[in-house]
Amino acid sequence: MKIAVLPGDGIGPEIINEAVKVLDALGESFELETAQVGGAGYAAHGHPLPEGTLKLAKAADAVLFGAVGDYQYDSLERALRPEQAILGLRKELGLFANLRPAILYPELAGASTLKPEVVSGLDILIIRELTGDIYFGKPRGVRECPDGPFAGQREGFDTMRYAEGEIRRIAHVAFQAARKRDSRVTSVDKANVLETFQFWRDIVTDVHKEYPDVELEHMYVDNAAMQLVRAPKKFDVLVTGNMFGDILSDAAAMLTGSIGMLPSASLDANSKGLYEPSHGSAPDIAGKGVANPLATILSAAMMLRFTFGKTEQADRIENAVKRVLAQGLRTPDIHEPGSTKVGTKEMGDAVVAALA
Amino acid sequence: MKIAVLPGDGIGPEIINEAVKVLDALGESFELETAQVGGAGYAAHGHPLPEGTLKLAKAADAVLFGAVGDYQYDSLERALRPEQAILGLRKELGLFANLRPAILYPELAGASTLKPEVVSGLDILIIRELTGDIYFGKPRGVRECPDGPFAGQREGFDTMRYAEGEIRRIAHVAFQAARKRDSRVTSVDKANVLETFQFWRDIVTDVHKEYPDVELEHMYVDNAAMQLVRAPKKFDVLVTGNMFGDILSDAAAMLTGSIGMLPSASLDANSKGLYEPSHGSAPDIAGKGVANPLATILSAAMMLRFTFGKTEQADRIENAVKRVLAQGLRTPDIHEPGSTKVGTKEMGDAVVAALA
Ligand SMILES: CC(C)[C@H](C(=O)O)[C@@H](O)C(=O)O
Ligand SMILES: CC(C)[C@H](C(=O)O)[C@@H](O)C(=O)O
Repeated sequence: MKIAVLPGDGIGPEIINEAVKVLDALGESFELETAQVGGAGYAAHGHPLPEGTLKLAKAADAVLFGAVGDYQYDSLERALRPEQAILGLRKELGLFANLRPAILYPELAGASTLKPEVVSGLDILIIRELTGDIYFGKPRGVRECPDGPFAGQREGFDTMRYAEGEIRRIAHVAFQAARKRDSRVTSVDKANVLETFQFWRDIVTDVHKEYPDVELEHMYVDNAAMQLVRAPKKFDVLVTGNMFGDILSDAAAMLTGSIGMLPSASLDANSKGLYEPSHGSAPDIAGKGVANPLATILSAAMMLRFTFGKTEQADRIENAVKRVLAQGLRTPDIHEPGSTKVGTKEMGDAVVAALA
Repeated sequence: MKIAVLPGDGIGPEIINEAVKVLDALGESFELETAQVGGAGYAAHGHPLPEGTLKLAKAADAVLFGAVGDYQYDSLERALRPEQAILGLRKELGLFANLRPAILYPELAGASTLKPEVVSGLDILIIRELTGDIYFGKPRGVRECPDGPFAGQREGFDTMRYAEGEIRRIAHVAFQAARKRDSRVTSVDKANVLETFQFWRDIVTDVHKEYPDVELEHMYVDNAAMQLVRAPKKFDVLVTGNMFGDILSDAAAMLTGSIGMLPSASLDANSKGLYEPSHGSAPDIAGKGVANPLATILSAAMMLRFTFGKTEQADRIENAVKRVLAQGLRTPDIHEPGSTKVGTKEMGDAVVAALA
């Protein structure tokens, strides 16, 4: 059970520390090795995804990832900026299936900007394709506009694309995940405008034939964005492409008001995965010991579940998190009058204590 | 003052009737001519945007548009489906600037799924580029995947693109609109991933030099989707591309909980425009006389303001709408206990009465 630990930037190291503490407390024999990534990778080795880090990640069974990005790297050229590490890892490791639960813990219902009745009990799973689409499609760049009213001017351009096999495999992930939940899949596309997503709709419809027990609904992305605000609890599993998934999964996370609680898993075709919190590197609070480590701790639980098949240990962690919430412990991001404000380390310690 | 009136499908004809009633009551000499569009265009002439309709729209100074789409046209091939009429009109008339205010009327704060303190007083303007981006970029289609792990399979593909001049002109629209408001523009892109939107960011930054009095902020689209849910009132003018704008403007509209109240304008380089409600054709309630005509009536007000420069008449309509809301009149979509439920016609009549 080899785990590559990549803390990254900002609050990354602090929250990763707590997740590692929780893993250590389980009494399993994990082999952990740490490496630099993101801005830290650039600072140490001149590249956000240093060769050694990529090698380590490839050799490991799973990657536990903190967060990347910090102000001082904002002005670097794009290829050297921290977030390129994420894109590189996804592509190099073939992590095509991004699973992002948007769950609202009953104790935290007040943290949402939505009315309690709209979000309480929210439990949806967003599955985002992660290695295709306009994120990686070629050609792309800046060129001379070849025709039309702007011919001769410069234009920026990118290529959106999805091959049949790419759509099939993510559709399978969605239908199989739905079977373990409420057996409903909403496939989000823009088939009324985009050829890529008319094709997506056709292929998802075809894959659905193998899952007659699962309900499939197609929804346009603009409507999905509206329904997430209007009645998010109506969704069970939502599956979509890389670009739409980027937008919708963040919107869905924010519905809960407690993005500091939300883990994510990015899986390959076997059981390898990269696990990271849904939130970012929050450089403004880095080093202050106030970051919420729970999303990272819950990401470690997802790792146990998906990569190592250790369901019981995953449950143990998830239950421990529920227990500390029930105890009223809160980091500042989810603090409310009446609850007990704690820092990053205290929260990690409390989860360890609650494992018992 | 020639106006092409295109009622379209579903509730389109009902709501357009009320807007026309209000225009008639102003005592101006508009020349109105009606034509079929969308499913109605297909039913009458075999095409969602019949030649005669396009000709009328081109000859007019402004287009007043209802809504398109109905169940019976869902199974037509894409090129014949109702929404192609919208795309065709935008492109043929060069309507590159889509203005969509998301306003929450104080009387309707309860209709939102968001907490009152998060949305009360909301007044943001989303400016969406409407004739470029991946909506119209070529090449597009389904082909054999040329390379990579899926080589030889079929793939769907589209081209995202923005030429310099396209970005410049929409940026000017945004900065100028901001000057009449709170002088703040948020440009939404995905410059960290897409070449098109790194280019977008560069050009918007350059145009901004001509507007030193306006504040410019750049924001990634995933973050913008989150901030719209977290703290929508922080935005003033939000400008973005066609695809991101499609998603964000619908999300923003839904924040208000009263999309039946929100108008839109789609403008060309001169003062010509197409004006339509932000909501759709709602075929499920078509013909029942319960649709909310206010978004369409407010769209007519935008037409008076932007195309005909009749600010006073536009104000008159907008004030009349405020007055009927203050009187407690509500169509079913915005009805709450204590208010008076009225139908489409009664609402239109009430606005006419309130013009005085
Ligand atoms: C940092 C960025 C490249 C990345 C993405 O767009 O995928 C991020 O927003 C995410 O969702 O993980
Ligand atoms: C109907 C569809 C083509 C259209 C769009 O995507 O632009 C609609 O969603 C809109 O926003 O007006």
